[in-house]
Amino acid sequence: MEFPELTEMGRRAKAAARGLAFLGSAEKDEVLLAMAGALREHAGEILAANALDVKKAEEKGMKKSLVNRLRLTEAGIEQLAAGLREVAGLADPVGEGEFWSRPNGLRIQRTRVPLGVIAMIYEARPNVTVDAAALCLKAGNAVILRGGSEAIESNIALSRVIARAAEGKGLPRGSIQLLEKTEREWVQQLLRMNAYVDVVIPRGGAGLIQTVIRNATVPVIETGTGVCHAYVEQRADFAKAVPIVINSKTQNPGVCNALETLLVDDSIAEKFLPLMAEELYRHGVEIRGCPRTCAILPGAAAATEEDWSTEYLDLILSIRVVEGLDQALDHIFRYGTKHSETIITEDYSQAQRFLREVDAAAVYANASTRFTDGGRFGFGAEIGISTQKLHARGPMGLRELTTTKYMIYGNGQIV
Amino acid sequence: MEFPELTEMGRRAKAAARGLAFLGSAEKDEVLLAMAGALREHAGEILAANALDVKKAEEKGMKKSLVNRLRLTEAGIEQLAAGLREVAGLADPVGEGEFWSRPNGLRIQRTRVPLGVIAMIYEARPNVTVDAAALCLKAGNAVILRGGSEAIESNIALSRVIARAAEGKGLPRGSIQLLEKTEREWVQQLLRMNAYVDVVIPRGGAGLIQTVIRNATVPVIETGTGVCHAYVEQRADFAKAVPIVINSKTQNPGVCNALETLLVDDSIAEKFLPLMAEELYRHGVEIRGCPRTCAILPGAAAATEEDWSTEYLDLILSIRVVEGLDQALDHIFRYGTKHSETIITEDYSQAQRFLREVDAAAVYANASTRFTDGGRFGFGAEIGISTQKLHARGPMGLRELTTTKYMIYGNGQIV
Repeated sequence: MEFPELTEMGRRAKAAARGLAFLGSAEKDEVLLAMAGALREHAGEILAANALDVKKAEEKGMKKSLVNRLRLTEAGIEQLAAGLREVAGLADPVGEGEFWSRPNGLRIQRTRVPLGVIAMIYEARPNVTVDAAALCLKAGNAVILRGGSEAIESNIALSRVIARAAEGKGLPRGSIQLLEKTEREWVQQLLRMNAYVDVVIPRGGAGLIQTVIRNATVPVIETGTGVCHAYVEQRADFAKAVPIVINSKTQNPGVCNALETLLVDDSIAEKFLPLMAEELYRHGVEIRGCPRTCAILPGAAAATEEDWSTEYLDLILSIRVVEGLDQALDHIFRYGTKHSETIITEDYSQAQRFLREVDAAAVYANASTRFTDGGRFGFGAEIGISTQKLHARGPMGLRELTTTKYMIYGNGQIV
Repeated sequence: MEFPELTEMGRRAKAAARGLAFLGSAEKDEVLLAMAGALREHAGEILAANALDVKKAEEKGMKKSLVNRLRLTEAGIEQLAAGLREVAGLADPVGEGEFWSRPNGLRIQRTRVPLGVIAMIYEARPNVTVDAAALCLKAGNAVILRGGSEAIESNIALSRVIARAAEGKGLPRGSIQLLEKTEREWVQQLLRMNAYVDVVIPRGGAGLIQTVIRNATVPVIETGTGVCHAYVEQRADFAKAVPIVINSKTQNPGVCNALETLLVDDSIAEKFLPLMAEELYRHGVEIRGCPRTCAILPGAAAATEEDWSTEYLDLILSIRVVEGLDQALDHIFRYGTKHSETIITEDYSQAQRFLREVDAAAVYANASTRFTDGGRFGFGAEIGISTQKLHARGPMGLRELTTTKYMIYGNGQIV
């Protein structure tokens, strides 16, 4: 089955991308500012649409915390507009490059250019609609957005307001489009539209991401689940270890760079674990431990094999006592998702080995895993955190929404 | 259905990759030189295995040109060994990087690291077995090779010789493995072994590449078909145009960067085409033209709609007369495969517009499309030419066989 409407959206996006690629930064920034203005101007209709989503969610008995993620407010719209202005202020990667000359006189220039057409597939939070559109546009790409059914009314209102503002500033129609159908079959087609879509970026839970990876023929940037570890080594400074573990676990437990498993060196476990547990319990964290952990902490539940590969996204921490760095590295090799890992130690060589030998997007010594974030890395904004190794790894900023092309200046050279 | 043997190969590769990542360049180069020595030493058994493949191919009635691509000789083995020594001489991208500091004192280091496990899927030519293994190894990766059934005996002999030499130098078992089964079902499994394989690189015809793209859940680097164009603009210097077209079309018509379609500006068609055709005919090229071309060149066959999107890989050229740059750009936008495109002109602005507006891996002004090649770009060696936009675009050298990881040095920072 093919939906001709969606094929047409693809064709429109591809045509729009051709024009977007040549826009200067100043033009794109002007559009972003116009979009920000339009959001404030049309706040009333956006909030009305959002109220429909919220009502439906409440009637369906959605968890309160999820309803809150769905809900937009005047202040929230103000924040979205501020986000657009911030993206307008970022440096434009398009047109960056380097060049070299060949002995035959050819001059080869590698230039950063937009990817083309990006499909963003995401879940409940309607603010992704605006954030993703802004970043794609700033990097010169056309975007096809597909949000979750829970936020469909909000997404339609938001995307129409910003797309209209963009077209008002002369952007080609098709630069920003929302797939307004929420049935699965439409996504299936979108994931296989290689003729029109250059990249798919899924953002959401493990289920969504796996569905996209399994079904897409279009190249995917996997943004991922994080089963992140902290290893408190024999020579850890407890005054650093305790706050780093607490911060990594509790500052925002629902995100991919939050801590899920604590590894503690055997030689310090009896001294460290009671201290650590006291703080964890004070922050409402449930502990699931290996037998040795449970022996030291009578309050801890027994961890099952499944716990070691679980991304709780909640105030739960699995704890395992390990016999030295090698066992810690083996545990991370086996159960890690290559997202963010940290060691807490004052031992130079142990820190170096951990940094070098752990295969993950971000490996830390003596810092919280929560730093894995485009903003905190200094990239200004992020479209997601890649856990794959191709193209982008770790926080993805504007540059990761571009590719390169070779422009070669000759004067008659042949092979 | 799952083949446990192949799963085991994946597990071995992943374990080997963990060790390979920390090898220094000197150690890797020593292994490459040992592999070169082993090829010469075991030339006899390799040639004997190759003779079996050649015999089978001849019995099956394989085309002579294809049999020749399959055939190995003493000199060919010498060339493979020389290739290994050349790769040993290339700069190692692993460990390159940059770093910056954040206001909170965190030091962020972005370091180039190997991809991990690469699966190479390719067709008849057995030399790919050695070339691909060498490049993967130099960039610190484990490789699983899967060549075509026509070259299976040669591939088994070659891979065993180099793998044994590598293990003799202490490389972990599983660093270089050949999938010795040629049935389709094995490849299907390989393409979905996300737990063990980081990247799949297909090299071969359009059929092979499409099969990989359609079936892989592991990230793919698409190496591709090239429907390459030359546009001879109104102000072209014929003394450059004719040799560039001849070189692009005839120097090696069977490769992806060879020319397939010539676009000629209407205003010069009557003067240019007869000149051009004379040279093309002299080189044995068959011409398939649009109506206007056929009117000017009575010897030309009429091109069908299908011709414009055909990669002939043969001494055939489609020719279309266009009304100016915009029509040329539209034609390339519609029929091009984003590989290599060239304009021949002395007009500055037309050249700049073509370079800027054509969306392809390599866009040329006044040079042959045949330059799109890792060696000719100065990369030293290439594993293929990417026609996708993610990760790598255009010729891929050693750097494209690596990824990056962030190593972050803290002293207790929390969010």
